Amino acid sequence: MNPSITLKVDIPSRNKHYPIYIEDGAISKVGEYMTQHLPARCKTLLVTDATVAKICGPTVLESLKLAGFEVYVYTIPEGEGSKTLAMAEKIFAFALDIGLSRKDAMIALGGGVVGDLTGFCAATFFRGVPFVQIPTTLLAQVDSSVGGKVAVNFLNAKNGIGAFYQPMAVLVDPQLLQAMPDRPFKAGLGEVVKYSLIEETCMGSHTLFDFLSAHAHNLAPALPNIIEHCCKIKAAVVIQDETEETGIRSYLNLGHTFAHAYEEITEYKTLLHGEAVVMGMAKACQLSEQLGIFPAEARSRFETLCEQLKLSLMPPKGLEPLQLLRLMRHDKKASAGNIRLVLPYQEIGYVQLRDDITEETILSVL
Amino acid sequence: MNPSITLKVDIPSRNKHYPIYIEDGAISKVGEYMTQHLPARCKTLLVTDATVAKICGPTVLESLKLAGFEVYVYTIPEGEGSKTLAMAEKIFAFALDIGLSRKDAMIALGGGVVGDLTGFCAATFFRGVPFVQIPTTLLAQVDSSVGGKVAVNFLNAKNGIGAFYQPMAVLVDPQLLQAMPDRPFKAGLGEVVKYSLIEETCMGSHTLFDFLSAHAHNLAPALPNIIEHCCKIKAAVVIQDETEETGIRSYLNLGHTFAHAYEEITEYKTLLHGEAVVMGMAKACQLSEQLGIFPAEARSRFETLCEQLKLSLMPPKGLEPLQLLRLMRHDKKASAGNIRLVLPYQEIGYVQLRDDITEETILSVL
Repeated sequence: MNPSITLKVDIPSRNKHYPIYIEDGAISKVGEYMTQHLPARCKTLLVTDATVAKICGPTVLESLKLAGFEVYVYTIPEGEGSKTLAMAEKIFAFALDIGLSRKDAMIALGGGVVGDLTGFCAATFFRGVPFVQIPTTLLAQVDSSVGGKVAVNFLNAKNGIGAFYQPMAVLVDPQLLQAMPDRPFKAGLGEVVKYSLIEETCMGSHTLFDFLSAHAHNLAPALPNIIEHCCKIKAAVVIQDETEETGIRSYLNLGHTFAHAYEEITEYKTLLHGEAVVMGMAKACQLSEQLGIFPAEARSRFETLCEQLKLSLMPPKGLEPLQLLRLMRHDKKASAGNIRLVLPYQEIGYVQLRDDITEETILSVL
Repeated sequence: MNPSITLKVDIPSRNKHYPIYIEDGAISKVGEYMTQHLPARCKTLLVTDATVAKICGPTVLESLKLAGFEVYVYTIPEGEGSKTLAMAEKIFAFALDIGLSRKDAMIALGGGVVGDLTGFCAATFFRGVPFVQIPTTLLAQVDSSVGGKVAVNFLNAKNGIGAFYQPMAVLVDPQLLQAMPDRPFKAGLGEVVKYSLIEETCMGSHTLFDFLSAHAHNLAPALPNIIEHCCKIKAAVVIQDETEETGIRSYLNLGHTFAHAYEEITEYKTLLHGEAVVMGMAKACQLSEQLGIFPAEARSRFETLCEQLKLSLMPPKGLEPLQLLRLMRHDKKASAGNIRLVLPYQEIGYVQLRDDITEETILSVL
């Protein structure tokens, strides 16, 4: 069993900070952790989905109750289809019904969908109630639970309605991932690899890529440190750019402009987000190499790591390049008509934002 | 014509500030003002209601267009019934339809309902787009447009879903009030009088009450200064307590616990909010005098001012005191079972928060 890690995330623009606790087995101590952050015996509204509820619902519930909290559970259907205003309204109605007040708290127990939806509800219910994240997928643990982005989808706008709202605390249990399905875990590794490719630009260090390479054959014992490292990178970016005003946050989108096109062209049915991100990063590396700004050797090291982690670099067959390009053009990150891309350059760890790559060049890698 | 006044509202917790412009005739200069705050030629989504649209819609529209902005108008039905998530969704859909982005802006042109609803939409559309308030009622000019509280009603929860979201700028045209109906203006004066009763406690000065008394016979020329003064008091409170964490903001609720009961018992059909607030303040003064903490002479000066301003102190006849008390008990400001009241004490301008007044004592003034 690994020791516990506590990361402090600063939000300088608000003179506030919150902790990310990373500990194998943490979910059986949720109650203890929460006593440091929530008023004694307050109401907690635990939002989760059916699968997660089955795997760790009882453990979390029991721990919260033992610590004296009044616990209510709202279970949503699994999947992106639940990230709607209609579902938020159901949670609001439930929260009103149990008399949840601004002295109580909402807790998200689940992956990105549960976290985003619950966070949006917490951000807007009575103009904001205390909010705690317990991410149960690797993707949520290293990405969506840090940074305060909460939202629901609206019509054709992914995350169209939302807020920037920071949690009181984030509780990460890496061990929990072993009980979860394998495919989302792999997809989460895609985002982990992404962090290793942007680390130098985001926080001036470059240890994650080698650490991943060294532990690729047996990740489980290294997970707490890997998650810590990813959260540090994400937090470093968020600190500089909480509400996306300066653009530093865009580095987190390495591979994403390609990825969104892959996801959209397959109608969000074939690829998980993290899987599409791996393919997008492969294209970004290929493009950078072709532009002469990224050495072939660095690209090859990236590809080797993905192979070791069993992450597929190849997009599904038969996708129409021109249609992909059209989708990339409509990605919300497009600026002044040009496609904006985050591209690796120089060496693994460095990225830059480019909007001067011609569509012909982009097409050549698709 | 009065000269223009610019008030700067600080939000220290966010290292930000925004201006409140107060100028007779300001609405014909909206475009000029906005060029200081919004990107050139950006899209602006003007949300308004039918009555306001008729009175000043064309003036605002023309001014914005002349300044080069792309203007879209969304008109909502008048009244509290429009402050819903359903109406917000219509605005979101319209905003998506016109391709509104985070580089564009939403402008609220109207009273409190338009401001609260549009502010909520601006706060959550793509996690926040620039927002400008042009309040067209006295109540909105002195109260709801300052402080960043935005919300819609949800089920039985007034302002149940919302956010704290500060505008880029607030533009106040006092002259506009002369074209607006008289009854809401009077109701707004109720909140103005409230500010004069809390000024000393909120910001250590006491000039508004005498200024109001001196100009009660002819308010119009004094309105810019009156509005300025009220906004200063509100801003002073908001600066100390942006998200209602410390309780200072509760002083703004002078008269409101009574007022909410009067509004609720008459099913929100008989009284405007500001009218109920005047009646509530009268009860608060009466209670304070009875408790021996407020001189009869001060109460009488308050009553004289209200008479001069033609504000009615008497609640509708036939209201059941015990039912009023029950409603006050359920007001959301109740703490630990006791009714919380903001009460005048010592002299006009001073208030204190009390939760130790017995229900018998409260009943005696109902």
